[in-house]
Amino acid sequence: MLLRHLAGAPMRSWRLTDLAAASGLHKATVHRLLGGLMAEGLVQPIPGGYALGPQAWLIGRAASQRFDLSGFALPSLRRVAEETGDVALLGVLAGHHTHCVAREEGDSPILPTSIRVGSIRPLGCGAHSLALLAALPDDEVERAINATAPERVGRYAPVTDDYLRAGVAETRTQGYALNEGVIVKGMTAIAMAARDAWGRPIASISCSAISERMLPEKRPAIISLLRQEVERLEARLRPPAEY
Amino acid sequence: MLLRHLAGAPMRSWRLTDLAAASGLHKATVHRLLGGLMAEGLVQPIPGGYALGPQAWLIGRAASQRFDLSGFALPSLRRVAEETGDVALLGVLAGHHTHCVAREEGDSPILPTSIRVGSIRPLGCGAHSLALLAALPDDEVERAINATAPERVGRYAPVTDDYLRAGVAETRTQGYALNEGVIVKGMTAIAMAARDAWGRPIASISCSAISERMLPEKRPAIISLLRQEVERLEARLRPPAEY
Repeated sequence: MLLRHLAGAPMRSWRLTDLAAASGLHKATVHRLLGGLMAEGLVQPIPGGYALGPQAWLIGRAASQRFDLSGFALPSLRRVAEETGDVALLGVLAGHHTHCVAREEGDSPILPTSIRVGSIRPLGCGAHSLALLAALPDDEVERAINATAPERVGRYAPVTDDYLRAGVAETRTQGYALNEGVIVKGMTAIAMAARDAWGRPIASISCSAISERMLPEKRPAIISLLRQEVERLEARLRPPAEY
Repeated sequence: MLLRHLAGAPMRSWRLTDLAAASGLHKATVHRLLGGLMAEGLVQPIPGGYALGPQAWLIGRAASQRFDLSGFALPSLRRVAEETGDVALLGVLAGHHTHCVAREEGDSPILPTSIRVGSIRPLGCGAHSLALLAALPDDEVERAINATAPERVGRYAPVTDDYLRAGVAETRTQGYALNEGVIVKGMTAIAMAARDAWGRPIASISCSAISERMLPEKRPAIISLLRQEVERLEARLRPPAEY
């Protein structure tokens, strides 16, 4: 879906070839789909490519009345931060990146600060982001790994393609993503993805702490807490039960 | 376009037949389009019909980085309110309704208060709303008039179907919408629609005052001020000039 990729980097000018690579569609198909989206104002041409158009803003503004994800998740984040004393955050999937849209802090005297509200990371860099990557279908996982490779080389050098493939497999087996000091030494995080009614991952809830506070024996409690809160969030994303 | 109609009443459950009527498409076509939008999470079934889904929120959140219409228009609204001393507002088109998303007040001692941020009106009820209705293609004008008829009967009784058809014709001829006390006695308003690069109306800027302050001899200055500000807003909606 092209809108999803455009939404992943809204300020960027997306070339037809980039969109074809990101979506796995043929260039001719991308061209035809863009025509329809442009006629509706959902997409507009900008120098060097394409970007979201004004009608995308309008539809999103309306949708925020039904789906204010940061609002939905805030009580969950608060409970996770209070019960653990550490940091809870909500990561939202956008194209091949994750955006941190909410963060709550517990009362522990030392807290990780590497991810703040507004932080954007390539998919798979961080537990919250790996949980989302692992929840995508296999072909999208591979496209995301390829698409973010250049960006990971510098700042996220330990997050290699092989690390991501192993991390996706592990996350799927375990049911949660674990990051033990891969990006920031001395910091551990656990995360779980929330999916909409069609199985599409939307956002993830994570808990991160200095590694001393997240030793293996403490993890089962954190995992069960996250599972509970992800289920609550998924209930808000799903059509009402009586449907 | 179905998303536009769903966005017009995001908390409502839209039936297939309502969407077909609103969009002018066959029911089978609407059903097929909804299938695609649901698979993407842009639409979701809810009891009794359909509504925007979680991915619409996500895409809109990204688009707001490029198109924060209320932000774009705020300096324009301030100038209109300061120069006239009256009320300037931004109405945004959503399906068959207009939403007031920003309002600025001048220093006149008596100001109209009937439209506030958050006010939603059926298309054509109020100058800001009539300007948007008149900017739509003829077939959409007729569909909007039919769709909002039940809602206009009570609160907006003077806004009859015939009033709207005459108002659309007049607005197109004049280049601006004028409302002289139709909805609130003693209040006059003038408005103009801003379009995106594809000619689709997005929002309107209006100026409203007690009628004594908007007598015919004062109107040309207001109209030229509105025209200027609408051009500024349209420049923000359009792809960059160098494209």
